[in-house]
Amino acid sequence: MSPTPAADARLSINQATAQTTAAETFLEACAAGGVRAVAPWRHQYVGGQARTMRRALDQHGLRASSLCRGGFFTGTRPADEAARDNRAAVEEAAELGAPILVLVCGPVTPAGPAVAVDAIRRGIEELLPHAVEHDVTLAVEPFHPMLAAERSAIVTLDQAISLVDAFDHPRLGVAVDTYHVWWDPDILNAIDRSRHRTVAVHVADWLVPTTDLLAGRGLPGDGIVDLSQLLRTLEETGYDGDVEVEVMNPIVWSTPVDEVVADVRTRMRTLLPVQAPG
Amino acid sequence: MSPTPAADARLSINQATAQTTAAETFLEACAAGGVRAVAPWRHQYVGGQARTMRRALDQHGLRASSLCRGGFFTGTRPADEAARDNRAAVEEAAELGAPILVLVCGPVTPAGPAVAVDAIRRGIEELLPHAVEHDVTLAVEPFHPMLAAERSAIVTLDQAISLVDAFDHPRLGVAVDTYHVWWDPDILNAIDRSRHRTVAVHVADWLVPTTDLLAGRGLPGDGIVDLSQLLRTLEETGYDGDVEVEVMNPIVWSTPVDEVVADVRTRMRTLLPVQAPG
Repeated sequence: MSPTPAADARLSINQATAQTTAAETFLEACAAGGVRAVAPWRHQYVGGQARTMRRALDQHGLRASSLCRGGFFTGTRPADEAARDNRAAVEEAAELGAPILVLVCGPVTPAGPAVAVDAIRRGIEELLPHAVEHDVTLAVEPFHPMLAAERSAIVTLDQAISLVDAFDHPRLGVAVDTYHVWWDPDILNAIDRSRHRTVAVHVADWLVPTTDLLAGRGLPGDGIVDLSQLLRTLEETGYDGDVEVEVMNPIVWSTPVDEVVADVRTRMRTLLPVQAPG
Repeated sequence: MSPTPAADARLSINQATAQTTAAETFLEACAAGGVRAVAPWRHQYVGGQARTMRRALDQHGLRASSLCRGGFFTGTRPADEAARDNRAAVEEAAELGAPILVLVCGPVTPAGPAVAVDAIRRGIEELLPHAVEHDVTLAVEPFHPMLAAERSAIVTLDQAISLVDAFDHPRLGVAVDTYHVWWDPDILNAIDRSRHRTVAVHVADWLVPTTDLLAGRGLPGDGIVDLSQLLRTLEETGYDGDVEVEVMNPIVWSTPVDEVVADVRTRMRTLLPVQAPG
């Protein structure tokens, strides 16, 4: 039997890529298809709980690369409810063995971007000790600016780095999603500046034309993003961790999941730098 | 009769706000509704030509604040065709008496953002002497990053300023559209840096939720953008020119145009700084 290529060792598939597939079926397909890691979403656990999801991961020989998601420090829910929910998310990440909890930080509200960023900073400050206690690293994910008013007031990698730099804490980093950041004229420099902060990498492509703000993402290679350049630049900063493919798209969702897994694995073998995980 | 408020003297309505209305009807409604200026689109002239459009503007006592649009230095059409079309756009702006030709610079292509920006720079360099000859100022309009692959590789005001600064030419400036730039964490600083470069201002609001990348824009006040702050900041840089309301939205398009004109005028009276045009 030939050794597993390093690319496979770093590949993770995000559960949102199979959002309409039962979680158990998704895990089966990943395991059977030679994928070693997945990124679960909290509302789609096998058995509805982190404990039962962890058991399913173990049974399939899979590990959790990260957990989606915590955050929403701004928005409509009360701050104490957000804080409680985020503490629970940290505990679930620990239970799943997921080293990373991805933070979708919450939208700009009518009070304005600056007020939102302040609320996000306070929310992280409050959550960080709980993350430390559970050995979970929080990852601030900058979102595409088109989602600023619905998902995240953090819209550029540079802004995420500034936020994280102010804490300068080993349990707080950034998640770089190619789909969210590719358009940034300064992205290669920002990736370089993120050198000691990048703790998670997500991959999706930007389709042309794009007609849906939430579920219009493309499989790697189907869009306009120079994924090879972005991943190589990340590699040059020393990033050697997991690379999660996260493609929200109804056409992908309606494709048999074993075909999606095989397709993703093939596409990523040509894209992923050869370095093994550190 | 009371003097016309300064806000009215600076208000212009972009023809795209009435995209499905006949051009003649749009001009009639603007004139009857107390609006002094409009921003025509090249494919929607009264009579199909700049000459006939100019006559219609004159008959209604209206002036053209700018012309939409030139540009598309990148994309699918051959470079010589783009150059020819852009020279024609400059001539049409002059014929209309429009001091400004708005440039939608053209998308990122598979060759990547840097190649696109180079092509845009060359296109502007080639067009500028023609603009000088016709007393028309070219305005580089940064577009929202969600349109990077379909409309414009220039996606931040800062990027537009850098492009324009490199020419440092009195016939080349930037157009600031609130809809395209509001999300930028650095926007207030960028507006300040644009001090000597801003030659056009467009206004639309960002609706929550937004479900359409092209025609999901909101009337001023209906969305999440702090338009008052952006317009005040522009005013503080010394900008005292026209402010064009440009709202592409099927609901606005299906509203009787005289109602839209009255509504826009009322909304902008509460938003526009009081300073008269310079």
